[in-house]
Amino acid sequence: MIAYSQYKPLPVSQVPQWDFETDVAVIGFGATGACAAIEARTAGARVMLFERSSGSGGASALSGGEIYIGGGTDAQLAAGFEDSVEDFTAYLKLAGGPCADNAKCELYGREALSHYQWLKDQGVPYRGNYLPGKIIEPTDDSTLIWSGSEAAAPFYKLAKPAPRGHVIQHMGWGGGRPLVDILEARARDLGTEIHVDARAVALITDEDRIVGAVVRIENQNRFVRAYKGVVLATGGFVFNDAMRRKYTPESFRVNSPIGDKDDGIGIELGVSVGGDAIHMDQFFTTCPWTIPADQAHGVFVNVAGQRFINEDCYHGRVSRCAVDQLGGKVYLLLDSAHFSQPLDLAGITIAGTGETWEEVEAELEMPAGTLSATMKVYNDHAREGRDPLFDKQTPILKPLDRSPFVALELNFETSYFSFFTLGGLKTTADGEVLNRGGSAIPGLYAAGRCTSGLPAWGHGYSSGLSLADCTFFGRQAGRRAAA
Amino acid sequence: MIAYSQYKPLPVSQVPQWDFETDVAVIGFGATGACAAIEARTAGARVMLFERSSGSGGASALSGGEIYIGGGTDAQLAAGFEDSVEDFTAYLKLAGGPCADNAKCELYGREALSHYQWLKDQGVPYRGNYLPGKIIEPTDDSTLIWSGSEAAAPFYKLAKPAPRGHVIQHMGWGGGRPLVDILEARARDLGTEIHVDARAVALITDEDRIVGAVVRIENQNRFVRAYKGVVLATGGFVFNDAMRRKYTPESFRVNSPIGDKDDGIGIELGVSVGGDAIHMDQFFTTCPWTIPADQAHGVFVNVAGQRFINEDCYHGRVSRCAVDQLGGKVYLLLDSAHFSQPLDLAGITIAGTGETWEEVEAELEMPAGTLSATMKVYNDHAREGRDPLFDKQTPILKPLDRSPFVALELNFETSYFSFFTLGGLKTTADGEVLNRGGSAIPGLYAAGRCTSGLPAWGHGYSSGLSLADCTFFGRQAGRRAAA
Repeated sequence: MIAYSQYKPLPVSQVPQWDFETDVAVIGFGATGACAAIEARTAGARVMLFERSSGSGGASALSGGEIYIGGGTDAQLAAGFEDSVEDFTAYLKLAGGPCADNAKCELYGREALSHYQWLKDQGVPYRGNYLPGKIIEPTDDSTLIWSGSEAAAPFYKLAKPAPRGHVIQHMGWGGGRPLVDILEARARDLGTEIHVDARAVALITDEDRIVGAVVRIENQNRFVRAYKGVVLATGGFVFNDAMRRKYTPESFRVNSPIGDKDDGIGIELGVSVGGDAIHMDQFFTTCPWTIPADQAHGVFVNVAGQRFINEDCYHGRVSRCAVDQLGGKVYLLLDSAHFSQPLDLAGITIAGTGETWEEVEAELEMPAGTLSATMKVYNDHAREGRDPLFDKQTPILKPLDRSPFVALELNFETSYFSFFTLGGLKTTADGEVLNRGGSAIPGLYAAGRCTSGLPAWGHGYSSGLSLADCTFFGRQAGRRAAA
Repeated sequence: MIAYSQYKPLPVSQVPQWDFETDVAVIGFGATGACAAIEARTAGARVMLFERSSGSGGASALSGGEIYIGGGTDAQLAAGFEDSVEDFTAYLKLAGGPCADNAKCELYGREALSHYQWLKDQGVPYRGNYLPGKIIEPTDDSTLIWSGSEAAAPFYKLAKPAPRGHVIQHMGWGGGRPLVDILEARARDLGTEIHVDARAVALITDEDRIVGAVVRIENQNRFVRAYKGVVLATGGFVFNDAMRRKYTPESFRVNSPIGDKDDGIGIELGVSVGGDAIHMDQFFTTCPWTIPADQAHGVFVNVAGQRFINEDCYHGRVSRCAVDQLGGKVYLLLDSAHFSQPLDLAGITIAGTGETWEEVEAELEMPAGTLSATMKVYNDHAREGRDPLFDKQTPILKPLDRSPFVALELNFETSYFSFFTLGGLKTTADGEVLNRGGSAIPGLYAAGRCTSGLPAWGHGYSSGLSLADCTFFGRQAGRRAAA
């Protein structure tokens, strides 16, 4: 009945019967959907949640459970970091680069502290301590980490740096799963009616208003009446190759999609009723090159032997800029004082070694005077604590002059470059889906990676931005839908 | 009555009366619209053309009147260039990069020779001669020029090079205006009914089919019945800042939009009925740095003193890659054997000079050993006729070692970087507008820069690709609409 491949909305006049009736229908059960459900229930609305998988999770459950929060949290203060709403908001805008949504940055900038309290009120535990260093995810149960480019150029010059990654108390990697479990339990306790193995395939319209959704359950179309609204919380489109080819073809340079059935259906449903999908070319990618920690002191060069970034910024920003380089690979240069075996997972290999940088250069078959000149300029200034080309900062800035030297290869095809998409529906800061003319579509709300939100720009991503966006703007969408 | 800002289609049941009735309604009177009208009339359909300006032209009339044609034209053969459908098609695909539409490349690859004959049959004159060198547009009335990256890496290794830019016989720059004049005259002679000062604001739908358009004429909504179809030929969105912010924010790095009221209305109308807008982040840009011709021998470096491209490729590809560089500007390095005063129009200034490259480096306040090391590597190899880093080819590859030396500044804000958008509706090779599920929207056709076509990728653009696309696929759309 519903031509799924065309995502056409169903006029309410063609609905044969209502199989489900609710106030708010939430589509998708990652962190976004759970937070939307919690807020909509808290506001007194009846809430049904439909999830295509057999349980909660989505991409959120595959994450580290880290949420980007600033403005002066308990953990920041305990560790002696000052942070202000102004600096925090300024950083959010810088992280969004040319794609920044100022209204979302400003709202979250103002309300992040109360959002942090809300997360704790839901039962999300935080140990409250600070873990220094260049950390991807804590391997213990620590809370506060530097999770972005705060202390690196050009960010530090425009927003006073502070660590803002707040990680759920959970031993080891993978705090996303317990985070979603806590939010799921809360949504259930509040009386959300949850349907799994239920895949949304169309929205239902009554003139301009969205009044429900068609959901496939046990291979049948089931018709959901949502008196107050539908919240799309279905994630990005990293597993939809056709969409990637049309909107994000550069993402085919890398190889390891992160997500859970993220096929872009929420974006398609939103657009099917006039929604606007923006910044669809943007994607996040990273290769875990800062593990072991000493390797964070390395210098990156492209196949022409040129540096291209201040390597002290966020590992994902470095990785995204690496993928812009010609040649299909980049090299991470280290000296014997900073080399240790790369993480197995990373698929990083040794491409060349030498007693001098000239020998490394020759082994990589680069012309004489390229990589070696790069390293001479780098080391000459690093000994003085300066990086006049890219403004890399101490203490990560160190001369790499203790032989032997090594060049590690990060290959876009064979090293582990995880990635996911950032483009999606344009929404207001309270979660209304906008049409291409800029007006809200009545009854339709969205949040998380089926929207373009705080993590809008692949080159500016910082860890915790996406879960901040999912949890905070998921809440706004749920609250607004229930209003 | 019609909320223009929402671009909503009008159901046929709400049309008060038909003010115009035709078989094919063409929206937009640049080269695309004219060619669509000619073909639809030739096929026997009644054709009305609606243009928002007071006459024909569009961005086509602002161009050089150059059309990219290969496979062995008379001009190519007369000048001794072999070209094959295979090499031509391969180049078209390379020029489209990750955004290439293979079906369009293959169709145009096969049919470009007959398209060239068709253009002549319409009355477009070609002198037939070959003008060697690195030419932006002939300043005389010559025909054949190297208008892309054919002879440059990596293109030359994957498709046998040939010059393929075919310029209308017209003294000096600006052949686009007479080209459109000829096509307009032909469309009129064939009986196209032309309405100017007529701005399309909505499509009219009958269930899934497009059956007409709403056009504003003298501040009134006029209702156009199109029995066979509507052809969108309205150009890109370079003059719509809101669209650029949402889809192409990187284009704000440059400053000089080229177009004629290109506000994206065709894209909006197509999307309003389910059409799919793809590769919306892509834009062309160029700064005319290859004039005077000697300057084409220059070397580009970024503010870190690094080369970033083989400078012998298309001036627009060099310019697009320049705009990717950090620092808001790049430098064109020349020696006294190759410097002359840049074109006034270009806004290129002298940033530094010196008796040695070390002096230039110092004057640009670059660290010692950066630009000078770059130029040492470059010159050492250029003297041997090689460029191991970027594979720049002789004879453009020349050592720059005759002092004094100069660094010209191409500043993204103050130099003349013209640009226009390349993203648009996804269409079949015969001009049907596709919905997001990949099915044709009955009755709706489009071509030119309101679609994503041959010039799909800003980094691969070659002069003449857009007019090739406009004229050839404009014809396909007109013919298909009339069928």
